[in-house]
Amino acid sequence: MKKMDLTPMLKPKSVAIIGASRDPDKVGHVILQNYINAGYSGRLYAVNKNADADIMGVKTVRSILDIKEKIDLAVVAIPAQYVPMALEECGRSGAKTAVVVSGGFAEIGNTKLQEDLVSVAEKYGMPTLGPNCLGVMDPRSRIDTLFLPTYKLSRPEVGGVSFVCQSGAVGSTVLDLISGEGFGLSKFISYGNAAHVDEVDILNYLMDDEETKVVIMYVEGIKRGKEFIEIARKITKKKPVVVLKAGRTAAGSAAAHSHTAALAGSYEAHEALFRQYGFTIADDLSDLLNYAKILDSCDFPKGNRVAIITNGGGTGVLSADAIGITESLQLAEFSPSIASSLRKQLPPLVNIRIPLDLAGDADDKRYEIALNAVTSDSNIDMVLAIVLFQTPGADSKLAAKLVSLKERMNKPLIVLSVGAEYTAMHTKMMESAGLPVYESPTAAVRSLAALLKYARYRGMK
Amino acid sequence: MKKMDLTPMLKPKSVAIIGASRDPDKVGHVILQNYINAGYSGRLYAVNKNADADIMGVKTVRSILDIKEKIDLAVVAIPAQYVPMALEECGRSGAKTAVVVSGGFAEIGNTKLQEDLVSVAEKYGMPTLGPNCLGVMDPRSRIDTLFLPTYKLSRPEVGGVSFVCQSGAVGSTVLDLISGEGFGLSKFISYGNAAHVDEVDILNYLMDDEETKVVIMYVEGIKRGKEFIEIARKITKKKPVVVLKAGRTAAGSAAAHSHTAALAGSYEAHEALFRQYGFTIADDLSDLLNYAKILDSCDFPKGNRVAIITNGGGTGVLSADAIGITESLQLAEFSPSIASSLRKQLPPLVNIRIPLDLAGDADDKRYEIALNAVTSDSNIDMVLAIVLFQTPGADSKLAAKLVSLKERMNKPLIVLSVGAEYTAMHTKMMESAGLPVYESPTAAVRSLAALLKYARYRGMK
Repeated sequence: MKKMDLTPMLKPKSVAIIGASRDPDKVGHVILQNYINAGYSGRLYAVNKNADADIMGVKTVRSILDIKEKIDLAVVAIPAQYVPMALEECGRSGAKTAVVVSGGFAEIGNTKLQEDLVSVAEKYGMPTLGPNCLGVMDPRSRIDTLFLPTYKLSRPEVGGVSFVCQSGAVGSTVLDLISGEGFGLSKFISYGNAAHVDEVDILNYLMDDEETKVVIMYVEGIKRGKEFIEIARKITKKKPVVVLKAGRTAAGSAAAHSHTAALAGSYEAHEALFRQYGFTIADDLSDLLNYAKILDSCDFPKGNRVAIITNGGGTGVLSADAIGITESLQLAEFSPSIASSLRKQLPPLVNIRIPLDLAGDADDKRYEIALNAVTSDSNIDMVLAIVLFQTPGADSKLAAKLVSLKERMNKPLIVLSVGAEYTAMHTKMMESAGLPVYESPTAAVRSLAALLKYARYRGMK
Repeated sequence: MKKMDLTPMLKPKSVAIIGASRDPDKVGHVILQNYINAGYSGRLYAVNKNADADIMGVKTVRSILDIKEKIDLAVVAIPAQYVPMALEECGRSGAKTAVVVSGGFAEIGNTKLQEDLVSVAEKYGMPTLGPNCLGVMDPRSRIDTLFLPTYKLSRPEVGGVSFVCQSGAVGSTVLDLISGEGFGLSKFISYGNAAHVDEVDILNYLMDDEETKVVIMYVEGIKRGKEFIEIARKITKKKPVVVLKAGRTAAGSAAAHSHTAALAGSYEAHEALFRQYGFTIADDLSDLLNYAKILDSCDFPKGNRVAIITNGGGTGVLSADAIGITESLQLAEFSPSIASSLRKQLPPLVNIRIPLDLAGDADDKRYEIALNAVTSDSNIDMVLAIVLFQTPGADSKLAAKLVSLKERMNKPLIVLSVGAEYTAMHTKMMESAGLPVYESPTAAVRSLAALLKYARYRGMK
């Protein structure tokens, strides 16, 4: 399979924004503004056929052909009918890659226009993303072709999760949600109609990208089945790929076709393929984020036995239920020696069994005793620590303690904390230190199951 | 069935806090502090056997027998072994109801002590809640027996949802979550070991409580099956009851027994009973809140056909999928006359089909056209309006427009908005005006299905 080099698109030394404008209502204005705001430090050019010397202080030309150097990335934000010609100029100027954010192609029946676009991209061997997409974002290189202002769509921090998304709407909302999560972004690639660069090319690139630890993706349809299988087989042996596939039902499938002209195909067939090649399957947007979080921050478990440590009995019960429902996980039991050691260290009212209910007055010291025991118990493979910050003993000292325990723990540890402001404050603190925190028993336990499943696919090495 | 009068517990004219203390580490201190903070305007007494004239400015006595009047509510927060004696004094003093927050009874094997407590409650015919519970909260009467400080556990606003909860941990976290939702609280009743007042008594009371529009409940076990069925049959004909039952699995069931000494029984048997009597069954904590929200604010639909209106294609596709998965709901289709009227009013690029994708530049005017059409289309029973606030046309004007459209709409309308800060701001605005907003396609669609199910149980009147 021929590999497209997307490095000039994601790490460009020079960018030309075709359609950059002074008019704040124009897409090209917002894109240029975002580049300026993000502090992109490469060479930036505005291209506008009615151009003056500069737009918002950025050197401006009438055509990309007027730029002296060969541009790494051309961002195209002009009406659809002018796109093929603009791309032709990009090609002639020696531009290495292009991102076409403009819509108005195959998704509304203009297949001819889209074919013209592909012809130009192929003629110049110029990887071209889109059309009808949000483009790319890379917080490391500060590349951001999104035409959505930052006050509406918060941008995530730097991290290890790459997000590949066919839909601009799903892309922008999930990106916005990631900005509130503890994990950070490696690359965001919204590929829209997938006319030239498609999911196969993107996965092929991300497979060898050292900054990408986990890939999450939303797809509506896969065009090149054979090549997809080839890349799927390889990438999941190197890094986890979480996939949310639209078109699970007849209703969704028809809607997907109308949206990106994707032939959604049989969901069952896709699901079987995803499973066979070790993809982690998400059922909803929230799964995408929940699974990314645990895969980004936890090592593989050695088995399926989960210890629950809690300061709230009922939440422990609900989590035990959630474990029962997964079928793949099971509730751990303490080894006799560990149990008797805990018996000596914990207050008499604490019942030494799993879920271990440390009681509503548990503080950081009591959690430390419990988690140290869990660490040295070979009958336990993973740990779910439930911390209800409404209780008297749960405070920032406990949150900090959990972070430090995670760092020296030899098995996956995640936290479940449910609540409003006071809880959110501590969740943020723990997550930014690399400890994944979940908001519901189901989300926490399903994420442990996803981690186990992928670990098994990889032979739990 | 004998009905216990819980009005003196929830609307007390006078309250005595037994175990009130100056020591900030004592439960009785936090409870008294919360009463003072909440601005309770009835007569408040502190009871402490080592008492001085007052604690934190509240009139203080050594025994409840020293209070001249008959107290409506005695809150008991002293060590377990002293509880039966304190309750005896409550009874002798003529106290009408009691809430025992103290733990240390049947849940740790002290069944004798719990029996003693019940004997006293029965002897005096004094409805006694607990032990091992958080007690009650009523934002209208400003009653709040919770021993958790408000900075850790935010208190909800006044509203129509009553929350009945066996577990204190689940109770406190869900209460905290409700504080961030648009709907408000009628009563919170945490009943712990259910030694005297149990779920049957509470539902019997809430059934006729005019302030309660929706009941949500978390239960670990039901003790009086026959009486429960009797009340279940009646209450769901008057108002919806959403139930989350712990012990769905062997693991959860065992954990529940260790927690509140509840015999969780077969979940299947409970579930069948809940379904037969029209309960709305929650699978997770999030369902409790999601279902409460829609049942509190939407009228019954006339059928199962859902229109999706969106400004983001992919999110429309995911929602169509979620509808397909429910089986009970179906995607609506526009009537021909409505479709042709829409064709004239909407931009040419908008495809007139459901999901109706108004495109990324849709503003309040375009939504108004679409929602007016939906209102007059007799082929549509419910509406899911997806608004992605990341897009240029979605702003506070659109949020306000949706609120006013909901008010004059003749069918249920809910909103789906996914995102971070900017989205959260608009969600809060819409929810506080009575328009339910959901954060994921699955949550939104499952909630519509729950509304339909209950409407069908009630004969859709």
